[in-house]
Parts: sequence; C-alpha cells; structure tokens
Amino acid sequence: MITSTGNGRIRELVKLKKSAKERMARGVFIVEGPKMFREIPRGMCLEAYASESFSLTDEGRDMLESARMKPAGPEVVSDQVFQYISDTRTPQGILAVVKMPEHEMRDMTGGVPLIIVLENLQDPGNLGTILRTAEAAGASGVLLSRGCADIYNPKVIRSTMGSIFRIPFVYTDDLKSAVLELKSRGVRIFAAHLKGSVDLYGASLTGDAAFMIGNESRGLTDETAALADQALRIPMDGSVESLNAAVAAAVLMFEAKRQRSI
Amino acid sequence: MITSTGNGRIRELVKLKKSAKERMARGVFIVEGPKMFREIPRGMCLEAYASESFSLTDEGRDMLESARMKPAGPEVVSDQVFQYISDTRTPQGILAVVKMPEHEMRDMTGGVPLIIVLENLQDPGNLGTILRTAEAAGASGVLLSRGCADIYNPKVIRSTMGSIFRIPFVYTDDLKSAVLELKSRGVRIFAAHLKGSVDLYGASLTGDAAFMIGNESRGLTDETAALADQALRIPMDGSVESLNAAVAAAVLMFEAKRQRSI
Repeated sequence: MITSTGNGRIRELVKLKKSAKERMARGVFIVEGPKMFREIPRGMCLEAYASESFSLTDEGRDMLESARMKPAGPEVVSDQVFQYISDTRTPQGILAVVKMPEHEMRDMTGGVPLIIVLENLQDPGNLGTILRTAEAAGASGVLLSRGCADIYNPKVIRSTMGSIFRIPFVYTDDLKSAVLELKSRGVRIFAAHLKGSVDLYGASLTGDAAFMIGNESRGLTDETAALADQALRIPMDGSVESLNAAVAAAVLMFEAKRQRSI
Repeated sequence: MITSTGNGRIRELVKLKKSAKERMARGVFIVEGPKMFREIPRGMCLEAYASESFSLTDEGRDMLESARMKPAGPEVVSDQVFQYISDTRTPQGILAVVKMPEHEMRDMTGGVPLIIVLENLQDPGNLGTILRTAEAAGASGVLLSRGCADIYNPKVIRSTMGSIFRIPFVYTDDLKSAVLELKSRGVRIFAAHLKGSVDLYGASLTGDAAFMIGNESRGLTDETAALADQALRIPMDGSVESLNAAVAAAVLMFEAKRQRSI
C-alpha cells in the first residue's frame, strides 16, 4: 500500500491531474469514480488506484478483481494519499490512468453525419455536457478548435458521464480547413447565431449536417460564421440575450434528432 | 472609501454572500458585475458597492452616477476589500444588495401557462441555467421544492444572467399540494422520466402544461412522479443513461415552444 504523497507514482498522478501539457506529452488522462471506471474500454486502462477504505467495500473488492485483468494491477493507497490525488472533495475511492482515444475526421462522417463543431468553448462543464448530449442525440462526432477547453480536464471527464469513451472527437489547429473539408464531403454547415436569418424550426436538418457553436460570451468568430451555409436562430422570448452554450447545442441537436425520427 | 475588511458593513456583506439563512432572514441577496447590476429592477437595489479601480473607469463612473438615484448611495471600497466581498476570483468591480422578489403561484398561471417544477435539484449552475432557459422558452414560472438549491446562491444568480429578475419563481414546502393545485386549475402535469411511457415528440404540449424535473442523480421521487398525467421520455441514442438536468429541461421547454409556435 502506498502511504506517502512523496511516492514517485503519486507525484506523477498529481502532475497528470493538474497539467494538460503533461497529459498530452504522455497521451494519457485520469478518470475517477466507480461509474466512470466501469466505462473504460478494454485495453485502454494503464494503471488503477483504489483508496484503502474503498478496497475493503464489496464494490471495491469486485472492481479490484476485474481491474486485475488489466496490464498494471490495481494499487491500493491510503485514504489520505487518495484524497491528495483525487480531483474531488469527496473522492469515490477509485481512479485510473487511461490512454487517450485516437479519432480521425472520417470516424464521424459515415452514415448521415450530425457533427458538432465547437469554436473556443471555454467552460469545462459545458464541454462535458455537450459530449454527453451529443451521444444522446445520436450525433456522430465533435470537432473542436484548439482554443476550446481541454477535453481531458477532470471536470470535463466527469460531466461527460462516460460519453468521452463513446463519441468520436477531434481537435484541429485549423478549424476553417476542417469545416471546408466537411463541406466538400457534402455536409451542410449550420451556424448557431443570435442574428441568424433562419428560424431553427424552419430549417431542414435531416441531411448530413454540422452545427457550429461559439464561445460562451463572444459566440462564433465572424470568420467561422462566414463558413456556414445557413445561420440558425433559436427563437427566444423575454429579455434573454443568449442561451447557455450547452443548452443551445442541446436544442439544436435534439431538433435534428426529432426531424430525423419522423 | 472603506479600506478595512473589519468594517461592519463589509462583515454583513460577507455573511450575506455565504449564508442562505442570513439572506432569508433579511430578505435580500447579492448580485455582482455590471451586467447583472443593470438588470436590477427599479426600487429593488438597497445598497451598492464599487471597487476603487472600477469607480475610476468610464463604465464605473456612469454606473455610480445612475446608482446615486437609489436609496443608499453607492460606496467605494478598496480593491482588496472588494476582492474580499466578491464571490468570484476576478471581481468585476460592482456589487449590490437587492431585495428578494416576492412571487405567488398565480403569477405563473395566467395565459397558457408553461411551468417548470423542480424537485430537489441540487446543482446551482443547473438551477441558474434552467431559469435562463425558461425565460427564453417563454415559460411562465418555476416552482421549486424546498429541497432544491438556494436560488439566491451567488453561483445561481450568475448563471441566470438576469432571468432571476424577470421570471416568477416560488419555493414550496409541500410540492404535492402545489402540483395538485396546478392540476385543479387545469394544468396538465408532465413528468420527465427515463422510463416514461410517452415519447416527448409524440406528446401534445400546446395546452396549459407543467414539466416536473427531478434531482440530478435520482430523478423524481416516486411520489412526485405519480402525480403526473403523463410521463415523458426524451428519446436517447447511445449508452447515455440520462441527460444533464438543465439539458433535459431545455429539450422539453423548447419542444413545447416549437409546438406552440406552429
């Protein structure tokens, strides 16, 4: 059992928790909690750690048993050390180091694609919620500009509720080229825009489609908005200036889902 | 200018920021930032505080000028004191003590009501987002069980983006009676439920309607779900177990808005 926060592996875990650069350099990220742990796809879990008290529960014993199948057997650490490596105030007792999935654009362009394009989305909670919603709405993938929040941030991971393992996503350094590539493949590009000329409920969303969503306070950049075939406006009552970005994404995606199901 | 965190008024402000009980006892809450400050309805602002550096900006000068109209003139405090009373890491330089609005059930039952009923909703960000979305979707009000998060929590206030001043909301100690009261007024009660028997897109939402949304992890209690005329299921793809509560609320409300606009 590891009982010291000075232990080399513990120090490495804390670096992975805190630093996006470190995660990127090693191509791994951290997931926490029994629920997320169960979602890790076969062969992706590289290391697992359980707190002493969790390892003594029935659930913990079962989980350690199944984790033993994985390359590096699970390590038990003292509760104090677990608190130190955990990203939450009330840690759930299990944590794993997981390989980053590798997706390509073509993973999201099969069938009748429904793609979410995010430009400089900053809030980790919004990003995680959008992944979760995208999977539920049957979206085929998420394309992110490099200026978006880091998808491997522990708060994003938590709010995806496991969708991070199931929906393809790709970061791009050149959002314009990536969107033009989608366009050249016949995907219709819709911008979510407060000044959009087309009412969401008047648009036809049953074909190959991509929705572009911008930054929480500034929306899409003019350059990116200009790439759209159509700028959609979600009709709004009251004096509300805009919707939360994850809510706007949800309203768009579920309207596409509705139209596709009738 | 107030320069000491030991100042009596400053100590009162911190109590208001931190304690729901204190806010309730005094019937006031705190709003922060120029955007929210501008939304405060006439006659509701009791005190205002600006940081020294904000008071020297053009925006700050304008705002202090207009705030002078209000009962207790704005007070300038040192930047260090402002950081101390602010709820955010990067304070925006203006903060006000505002009277709690007083709403009744009948404020939300006029016209063709669309009411959101929240049972034990815990996350402040979700709660604020639901208020903001409700206003945008043209909902007539929000009914909250006492077990919900405190709507006057600074994080809720921030995420409402001003909707807290514009949409009626009522807390109730007896959710069942309140829902039965709505029912007796002819409001159709819909439960958002993972095991709902009716697909959202097969339901008719154009009449007087209320949507009941439950706790983030446990959903609606059986007792509350049993009050519904219809249990609605939002169709979901993939392996997603549930949607984020604010997203589920948004999908329901905007589907009602869509049906009502055609």
